[in-house]
Amino acid sequence: MKASLIWRWEKGSRPRRWPDELAREEPLEIRVDDRAVAVTMRTPGHDEELAAGFLVSEGLIQRREQVVNTATHPRNADRNVIGVFLADGVQIDFQRLTRHTFVSSSCGLCGKASIESVRRQFPPIRRPVRVQAETMLALPETLRRSQTTFARTGGLHAAGLFDLDGNLLVLREDIGRHNAVDKVLGCGFLDGRLPLDRHILVVSGRASFEIMQKALAGRLPIVVAVSAPSSLAVEFAKASRQTLAGFVRGERMNIYAGHKRIVFPKNPGST
Amino acid sequence: MKASLIWRWEKGSRPRRWPDELAREEPLEIRVDDRAVAVTMRTPGHDEELAAGFLVSEGLIQRREQVVNTATHPRNADRNVIGVFLADGVQIDFQRLTRHTFVSSSCGLCGKASIESVRRQFPPIRRPVRVQAETMLALPETLRRSQTTFARTGGLHAAGLFDLDGNLLVLREDIGRHNAVDKVLGCGFLDGRLPLDRHILVVSGRASFEIMQKALAGRLPIVVAVSAPSSLAVEFAKASRQTLAGFVRGERMNIYAGHKRIVFPKNPGST
Repeated sequence: MKASLIWRWEKGSRPRRWPDELAREEPLEIRVDDRAVAVTMRTPGHDEELAAGFLVSEGLIQRREQVVNTATHPRNADRNVIGVFLADGVQIDFQRLTRHTFVSSSCGLCGKASIESVRRQFPPIRRPVRVQAETMLALPETLRRSQTTFARTGGLHAAGLFDLDGNLLVLREDIGRHNAVDKVLGCGFLDGRLPLDRHILVVSGRASFEIMQKALAGRLPIVVAVSAPSSLAVEFAKASRQTLAGFVRGERMNIYAGHKRIVFPKNPGST
Repeated sequence: MKASLIWRWEKGSRPRRWPDELAREEPLEIRVDDRAVAVTMRTPGHDEELAAGFLVSEGLIQRREQVVNTATHPRNADRNVIGVFLADGVQIDFQRLTRHTFVSSSCGLCGKASIESVRRQFPPIRRPVRVQAETMLALPETLRRSQTTFARTGGLHAAGLFDLDGNLLVLREDIGRHNAVDKVLGCGFLDGRLPLDRHILVVSGRASFEIMQKALAGRLPIVVAVSAPSSLAVEFAKASRQTLAGFVRGERMNIYAGHKRIVFPKNPGST
């Protein structure tokens, strides 16, 4: 976990600075001998196991003796490159490596490099929009009530597009969180509504790096998550000048980045 | 959602057949003109939006007029191929398509084709192991109690490897569910414990196609999920002869596939 200083707000009081801990999210590049085969966003720790398990899952290795060694790449200070070294004579059919395999633009490779590479593609959001804190508090419940019963109980992910007054414009559900967000963005695109720079994206679960990147691509200045953001989501939001709120539940929320877009009640005691 | 007939068991009673509904999971191949650019596992519906949103997220398209049309591929009966057709003269920099892009071995392309393509790689599990139903009930709570407080409260995914007597052997946590499972498999691999054909995999959340495929690669005959499995996870488990239980909570569980590996108490009334 990663320590962080956030803003915490509870209805009826003033926002306060608060120490918080975030789940770490960092990219890991997996190499076989000298060949990069995949990049996955993961929580650091047990990286040698992750690399070996990935290769087992892909059907590339089966027996312990096929692997001589696994080791963090010596030239990578962030420890985000892991090499799996095969025993002499072991042949791997890389053609099998078809699913899940992707080459990352962030093969640098650390969280910072990932952020930089996305930022080269999408500039930060400088739009000075404002939203009432109380409006934000209500969004997750509006999203939840608008989901189908099945999605709520069966645990489908939901993503919603809201205007700055808290009106729900689009709701999409999917077994994949990133898909629900893509559907919302795609709906906006097909309706000719992009850039969505006066809108709020609400997601039913966590906010990851990927969610923040998609929001930035759609030019969304504000993202609200029902659960926690990852460390990299928060770093990304700061670098992209996005507003990111998490654990928005009942009468409370945590603000991880861009609190200046949020208007808090002036006299909290009197409301 | 997809209707299904499952086994439901509650401690103190006999297992009963029960109608159930599953969240649908199917692959979608996204094409730009005639070029396949990605495959994602998604819940069918709003596929044109998903395709457009994916391309927006990747920075490939920005303005509505760049796209003439989006349409399901006419030769694909399963409606799992979607094409995005660009306006005349619109150039896309496919070099940008670096992250998340992968070519699926199941570019057939339906759930059935996905299952078949994985099955060609990993044979079904015929191991006749048995596990007590009551042992299974206890696994999620054992997993949860063994998680770190931070992981429990911050919502990290957990995966655990258990023996058939319900003893926890390995616990791994990660921001990505698939990573937690890969770490467990990789730990087994590095310890020389593969195949894990007398073991149980427990996951803290949902069971997707991908989780079942990873379990099969490790030769795990039994998978227990705290939440719901997807439609494709259940189909995959049946085809691979895996046992799959979901919503394993308190004194109940649902069995979606391979119930014959589970030993239920003989005289439920008297226990």
